[in-house]
Amino acid sequence: MCTSLEGQYQTFQDELATAGLLIRSGVQGVYGLGGVFEDVVERFERYVTDVGRPFGAEVMRFPPLLERASYLKTDHLETFPHLLGSVHTFLGGEWEYAELVRSKHSGGNWSSQLGPTEVVLTPAACYPLYPTAAGRLPADGRIVDLRAFVFRHEPSPDPARMQIFRQREYVRLGTPDQALGHRDFWLQRGLEMLLALGLDAKAVVANDPFFGRGGRAMAASQRDQTLKYEIVVPVASKERPTAVISSNYHLDHFGGAFGIQTADGKPAHTACVGFGLERIALALFRRHGFVPDRWPAEVKTLLE
Amino acid sequence: MCTSLEGQYQTFQDELATAGLLIRSGVQGVYGLGGVFEDVVERFERYVTDVGRPFGAEVMRFPPLLERASYLKTDHLETFPHLLGSVHTFLGGEWEYAELVRSKHSGGNWSSQLGPTEVVLTPAACYPLYPTAAGRLPADGRIVDLRAFVFRHEPSPDPARMQIFRQREYVRLGTPDQALGHRDFWLQRGLEMLLALGLDAKAVVANDPFFGRGGRAMAASQRDQTLKYEIVVPVASKERPTAVISSNYHLDHFGGAFGIQTADGKPAHTACVGFGLERIALALFRRHGFVPDRWPAEVKTLLE
Repeated sequence: MCTSLEGQYQTFQDELATAGLLIRSGVQGVYGLGGVFEDVVERFERYVTDVGRPFGAEVMRFPPLLERASYLKTDHLETFPHLLGSVHTFLGGEWEYAELVRSKHSGGNWSSQLGPTEVVLTPAACYPLYPTAAGRLPADGRIVDLRAFVFRHEPSPDPARMQIFRQREYVRLGTPDQALGHRDFWLQRGLEMLLALGLDAKAVVANDPFFGRGGRAMAASQRDQTLKYEIVVPVASKERPTAVISSNYHLDHFGGAFGIQTADGKPAHTACVGFGLERIALALFRRHGFVPDRWPAEVKTLLE
Repeated sequence: MCTSLEGQYQTFQDELATAGLLIRSGVQGVYGLGGVFEDVVERFERYVTDVGRPFGAEVMRFPPLLERASYLKTDHLETFPHLLGSVHTFLGGEWEYAELVRSKHSGGNWSSQLGPTEVVLTPAACYPLYPTAAGRLPADGRIVDLRAFVFRHEPSPDPARMQIFRQREYVRLGTPDQALGHRDFWLQRGLEMLLALGLDAKAVVANDPFFGRGGRAMAASQRDQTLKYEIVVPVASKERPTAVISSNYHLDHFGGAFGIQTADGKPAHTACVGFGLERIALALFRRHGFVPDRWPAEVKTLLE
């Protein structure tokens, strides 16, 4: 019996596929979801909406694409180039078309004949918000409710490490105190929400997976400043729990890049909490079984 | 006053943006949606679900990505290369990374240093289904309920011509009679649904926007065979109504490409009805105004 980490991932993936919860696409980390899985995602989202209601957040729903020019105002290409999804298409005429088709049919490198479009795949649900928030914020800042598919090129047999998945986020834009207060409130509240669902959740200091040698120093600095917390839960593996919620303080990283200012003209600080919707559903399936009707009564009530 | 088609598009887009229904991204055809817009989409989807319930369709929810290898089994690259979204990323090491960053900072063509990933953006909601349906169908075939973001690279000022939008689909896989019956049922039922919402809808024979010179013959053939119908409604322009539902019979196009067979071993025929969710919401805003609370009582009842 295989109990390596890879083995645990593959076993859990197989179980989910057999149950019709995950539908494999041929690519590691890209799955269709069965109706039961999708229903759990929707139920958990309603729970988030209920908990967040007192804040009266503005609802915005962005598609999974970000303007390329906005992308280039961030340092994502410098810090996470290996995770990027850049969207390319065929921009040629009849002559280039003939070449393209010939190249496909001869097994050639046809995709090298494509050119970049005006968009990239969204790396995190809050990225499309910042360019739209340029200028002065109202006196109390803003709180925005987001949900989007995000892309990260990291193929893995771990069903919880998807290349494309949905983040539900609450983003705070305002003063340093407002941003930090948001980060800390949701870190605590998120933990309580998962514990109430019977999940073995705990908060840990975390860092982003920055690229390469230079990235190691950035990760260490991010941890030293305790800017990023994650709430982790056992999903495919007990020994290597999975981050299902992330609560982050960005300082004026986005406020500076996109010209977002507080009411008194200072660079806005931002913070976001992100719920990994598919991961949370997977954690619930792992903890309570594959049949939501048989989950504990208190869990079903919270997800009603 | 500008009454050209471009002018009508821009005016409607401006009105929607001012009302907070559309949030512009900087790219034509890529928009965030305000909460009121998203709520109309969700309400219309529930209406579709209610109408489709008697068929007991299998629910599957695919993300906006399709396996590249599956994509290449279709003729999409031959027929719609100009609409494709191919996903590329950075696949190099430290040395190539330094080049990439240098290229970005010097305003160079950094995206040419990316390579293709294992995925492309989904061109239509039913594409990811077919590779998973290979093999023999059950005796009655299958009916599948899908919803997905799809991508088409066609920047336009028309708010109804988005580059990324959601299709809700019912797909039939089975015999020619089953597929054709599905196409015709939903053509009729879709028309009734829109008329009941007060929309000035009508069904027309249609064709796909095939690429180039060769594409003109394919479009003519598709029309001659009346394989594709669209239901059109005035959105930005009264003179040029917009397709908001499409009901299509694919013959054995996908059944053959993906090895899908009827119970008795013949190539499966397929058909799909697709509801353009953002377009239908836009048609409702155009017809009944930007405040759903003030829509006619019978419309509100159907979308409750």
